[in-house]
Amino acid sequence: PQSPVAIGLVPSILSADFSRLGEQVREAEEAGVQRIQIDVMDGHFVPNITMGPLIVEAVRRSTSLPLEAHLMITNPEHYIEAFARAGADVIIVHQETCPHLHRIVQQIKEAGKQAGVALNPSSPVWLLEDILSLLDLVLIMTVNPGFGGQEFIPETLPKIARLRQQLTERQLHCDLEVDGGINEHTAPLVVRAGANLLVAGSAVYNGRESVAAAVERLRRALAFT
Amino acid sequence: PQSPVAIGLVPSILSADFSRLGEQVREAEEAGVQRIQIDVMDGHFVPNITMGPLIVEAVRRSTSLPLEAHLMITNPEHYIEAFARAGADVIIVHQETCPHLHRIVQQIKEAGKQAGVALNPSSPVWLLEDILSLLDLVLIMTVNPGFGGQEFIPETLPKIARLRQQLTERQLHCDLEVDGGINEHTAPLVVRAGANLLVAGSAVYNGRESVAAAVERLRRALAFT
Amino acid sequence: PQSPVAIGLVPSILSADFSRLGEQVREAEEAGVQRIQIDVMDGHFVPNITMGPLIVEAVRRSTSLPLEAHLMITNPEHYIEAFARAGADVIIVHQETCPHLHRIVQQIKEAGKQAGVALNPSSPVWLLEDILSLLDLVLIMTVNPGFGGQEFIPETLPKIARLRQQLTERQLHCDLEVDGGINEHTAPLVVRAGANLLVAGSAVYNGRESVAAAVERLRRALAFT
Amino acid sequence: PQSPVAIGLVPSILSADFSRLGEQVREAEEAGVQRIQIDVMDGHFVPNITMGPLIVEAVRRSTSLPLEAHLMITNPEHYIEAFARAGADVIIVHQETCPHLHRIVQQIKEAGKQAGVALNPSSPVWLLEDILSLLDLVLIMTVNPGFGGQEFIPETLPKIARLRQQLTERQLHCDLEVDGGINEHTAPLVVRAGANLLVAGSAVYNGRESVAAAVERLRRALAFT
Amino acid sequence: PQSPVAIGLVPSILSADFSRLGEQVREAEEAGVQRIQIDVMDGHFVPNITMGPLIVEAVRRSTSLPLEAHLMITNPEHYIEAFARAGADVIIVHQETCPHLHRIVQQIKEAGKQAGVALNPSSPVWLLEDILSLLDLVLIMTVNPGFGGQEFIPETLPKIARLRQQLTERQLHCDLEVDGGINEHTAPLVVRAGANLLVAGSAVYNGRESVAAAVERLRRALAFT
Amino acid sequence: PQSPVAIGLVPSILSADFSRLGEQVREAEEAGVQRIQIDVMDGHFVPNITMGPLIVEAVRRSTSLPLEAHLMITNPEHYIEAFARAGADVIIVHQETCPHLHRIVQQIKEAGKQAGVALNPSSPVWLLEDILSLLDLVLIMTVNPGFGGQEFIPETLPKIARLRQQLTERQLHCDLEVDGGINEHTAPLVVRAGANLLVAGSAVYNGRESVAAAVERLRRALAFT
Repeated sequence: PQSPVAIGLVPSILSADFSRLGEQVREAEEAGVQRIQIDVMDGHFVPNITMGPLIVEAVRRSTSLPLEAHLMITNPEHYIEAFARAGADVIIVHQETCPHLHRIVQQIKEAGKQAGVALNPSSPVWLLEDILSLLDLVLIMTVNPGFGGQEFIPETLPKIARLRQQLTERQLHCDLEVDGGINEHTAPLVVRAGANLLVAGSAVYNGRESVAAAVERLRRALAFT
Repeated sequence: PQSPVAIGLVPSILSADFSRLGEQVREAEEAGVQRIQIDVMDGHFVPNITMGPLIVEAVRRSTSLPLEAHLMITNPEHYIEAFARAGADVIIVHQETCPHLHRIVQQIKEAGKQAGVALNPSSPVWLLEDILSLLDLVLIMTVNPGFGGQEFIPETLPKIARLRQQLTERQLHCDLEVDGGINEHTAPLVVRAGANLLVAGSAVYNGRESVAAAVERLRRALAFT
Repeated sequence: PQSPVAIGLVPSILSADFSRLGEQVREAEEAGVQRIQIDVMDGHFVPNITMGPLIVEAVRRSTSLPLEAHLMITNPEHYIEAFARAGADVIIVHQETCPHLHRIVQQIKEAGKQAGVALNPSSPVWLLEDILSLLDLVLIMTVNPGFGGQEFIPETLPKIARLRQQLTERQLHCDLEVDGGINEHTAPLVVRAGANLLVAGSAVYNGRESVAAAVERLRRALAFT
Repeated sequence: PQSPVAIGLVPSILSADFSRLGEQVREAEEAGVQRIQIDVMDGHFVPNITMGPLIVEAVRRSTSLPLEAHLMITNPEHYIEAFARAGADVIIVHQETCPHLHRIVQQIKEAGKQAGVALNPSSPVWLLEDILSLLDLVLIMTVNPGFGGQEFIPETLPKIARLRQQLTERQLHCDLEVDGGINEHTAPLVVRAGANLLVAGSAVYNGRESVAAAVERLRRALAFT
Repeated sequence: PQSPVAIGLVPSILSADFSRLGEQVREAEEAGVQRIQIDVMDGHFVPNITMGPLIVEAVRRSTSLPLEAHLMITNPEHYIEAFARAGADVIIVHQETCPHLHRIVQQIKEAGKQAGVALNPSSPVWLLEDILSLLDLVLIMTVNPGFGGQEFIPETLPKIARLRQQLTERQLHCDLEVDGGINEHTAPLVVRAGANLLVAGSAVYNGRESVAAAVERLRRALAFT
Repeated sequence: PQSPVAIGLVPSILSADFSRLGEQVREAEEAGVQRIQIDVMDGHFVPNITMGPLIVEAVRRSTSLPLEAHLMITNPEHYIEAFARAGADVIIVHQETCPHLHRIVQQIKEAGKQAGVALNPSSPVWLLEDILSLLDLVLIMTVNPGFGGQEFIPETLPKIARLRQQLTERQLHCDLEVDGGINEHTAPLVVRAGANLLVAGSAVYNGRESVAAAVERLRRALAFT
């Protein structure tokens, strides 16, 4: 039985309309989401190039919500300061790209930001054993990072549960976020497994409905978990 | 004496307001510019991460002007198709990142696009000797690529002239574009040296004046060259 | 007590005579082996360059046995389709080269092939915890990959046993293959520890005896395990 | 007017049948070719993985012709000794992969082998200005390296001529080899431009005719140049 | 309760005065330390470049103490022989840089030297599960490698204890060394947690006191643990 | 006929005794040399690891002579500030490692230091055509960088002459330095070809004679050029 933490919705702008990004972000804010995620891809760690500090700045000017910069890039140590200056509140790096994970977590904190670490679907949670107590957030990828609109990988549910258990046992106050394939069907599953922050891309920005309607649909799906 | 080619203005969105990108692009189109340039940086070839195919798509939906994707990335061969599909009309790669420059030029053309090659300030033009006849555009960088708002490097003027001379002598129909530090003071210099396409970033998008006014100012500067 | 799975012999052509490869492969097929393994090395992940898709094609034309392509290469994601088209039935990548292991397993399956993951001697089996249920085969290296004719590393036996235990406990139908230093002395050891597919290179192709005699010798060694 | 050097034919085994490589090589030897070329690709410098020292050894055992190892690999310095030991007589590295080109030429010569340098279609010949007097062979690629069966790039003809002129002016005894798209139509062109060694892949090994017939066809095409 | 192993002090010359290195090393030897550590950094694995085999040779000529070469470099396999020849007695590589950790341990032993493996603060000890029985030394980094004078990370204490427990349970004779932020306050903590070799840099070489006095101070701090 | 510039001797400490570096540097200063060179190698650009900023600091404290840091490293842009802070007066990077050569020259000058560019033996001088007017020094390598004690490559003499001619024609005040195999036999040759700064390693530090005697011997050899 999971502790009664509040569940937060975190729209990812990866699926938003970039010709009117400010508007899209404000729509999410008005719909009452908790944070905004910005998916930074460098075409090296993942097979896509997306956006960088300039986009973080543009989002920063458009909302007062906390911003997460999810760095799907190799050598993220060279860009922590740029994303901090651009206005990110939480900076998330991938365990798979950081042999010096402890140093980069220090670097993020010295920049005055919250530090998160993301794990690919195939990376076991105990790779974080010695760093977990210093983290503000762990992001369990529930798809392979690189593109919006992918299908949720159900094999990640036991992994979410395993991490929640460790956080509970070690009494750590660390957000457990999930990202990938989150919609009204999968959201209840990941929350039951132990996630408390849910990134949603195409479920929020999809062109078929308003952002408000999309957020409301996700909220209702979570109401009875 | 340079042939009387028409001079084209190519605003770079690197300095635009990304919260209302569609609008910014339409302002440039209405001001009568010839093309739009999209500065793609991967944080590996250059020390900045900017934008990728998603932004090209958003610009594509906002204008009918020709779009140039300037790929300041390593291993660009992995991304030609993505930028072609996203709607770029001209794809520009850097000589410094392409040991197989001939293959990538073929790849761009097979994708049905115009092929350009960019040269850093320190890269001599004769590095293009054996590929020049196949190119639609050469981009001479007049600053070190990576950031908007840098100062024009005057040492690049003889290099522009040297390339113009080669194009004339070999009777090649290839655009000679310059990028970096272009404003009303430097624009006449590069045109006199031989450039016929001028990328302008902060001279067009600067928050001090309307895009229309900025473009008009650049045009006047060029009127008597 | 290990489940009574049939033990399969998988000759590796790394030690075969490449001037008459078709013949060498047919000799193995006639000797009744289960599969053929093709050792692909790129000179980057391992300190040797061996062979690629062209050799897989040549082997494919020479036998109807299932073919395993063991990719000892970095960035294997760029070559999955080439090896699938060339005729490999099982494609094995190394955990150490795949930060996005889940994606490449999906990629192999989407190409219609069986997916295997190899582990170097020093890589613990629980690195596969979150991907194991999706695999068709795990290959435990019993030498350091790179060359034929190396000596079996006995420290890998408890590791084989540990993986077999996990497969049994989680009721997973996944082949447990070993590769390196397998001969009539070590074959019984790895089978007792839990392996069910045994790659053999110089024990099968050695120039001292016929392939048929070599295979028979290995079979007898396994008869009483 | 080019000096009356004898023209040599160098079949590349890239297009041969690898299931009976020894036989294919002997067919070429019997047809009277001058050398055999072995195309080594590592999947990093070029987008294909082909073969390594083991194949050189197999070819070595099958013929007494001189063997050329054309190393289309990054960091070739790690593999010079392996290819020398395997039986290559000429070792060719790419200018594009060797910032320390002078050292690797020394390394090849210290291994007792002839040293060649290959240039991609887009690499100008004067990149070899300071090393030319030490080379036994320059290989001008007339297609982008990576695959057999590509079409000849006519833009390379002036480049061949430019190199021939330099060799003549500087009175250097250095083979000028070409590789890519060589057949009965292009062979006379490259010879007239100044090449004296012609690598031929699919023109020699093509499954439509015997190796002897293919070689004879190429010879006739060259008879009247 | 930890087994009564003798505690060894290992000054790192990273903080020594390099203009009189021989003298500084002799001062440490006279103060009765057990070994000398040489911190090799390549500017790639860690953000600093320090020293290489030439410095090991100079230290070798200055003392008869055992020398440890701590290789904070990528691709250490290319430098094992150089450091062995230069006079290192123990060669320590990082787990994070060695996908083929087992091979490099063999390589160190074949060079006649003791083999150690270092772990960054964020790397869990069970990454060494399958290699531990072959090691002479494990080095637990208690700061992020790269610079002298950093502050001890207390989160590493449970990790030291976890490794000591494994060594005891598996009855392995393997040194457990710690490096980073060791001084009279932290030395007792790491010894109680299970370390038996303590690297000390700025605590030994600090310009405020003689090496003898510094060593004596550390010894006193350890006297009552 | 070369302009009557004064010839400067620049001992490289690569061949010095590192156990008493301060002393060795002072001996050179007393012998009247013009500068000291510090050979920084990272084991990536060249096959040796030597020294970094800490050694520059130690040399800085030992002499008031100008110090040159010769960076034989990849990605030198990350280390310019460290070498400037450590006390280097001239910072030399390799053309072969700097696709953004112009930026790094700016970076060196912004750090208040003189900027030099080194060329490997096989790199033609016109690769510097567009940057030459901004340089304080060009270093022509007369051996392949990596080790002390190598033999002078005579093929570099015409290259030195070619660069001297360009400097003269373009009236540039830029030092022309040579490095590698310089001794009393080769020193007159490089000076006649146009060099004005001569790096000497084992000719100055060789253990057979005093530094003063070695320097005197080189001076005499130069007296009548």
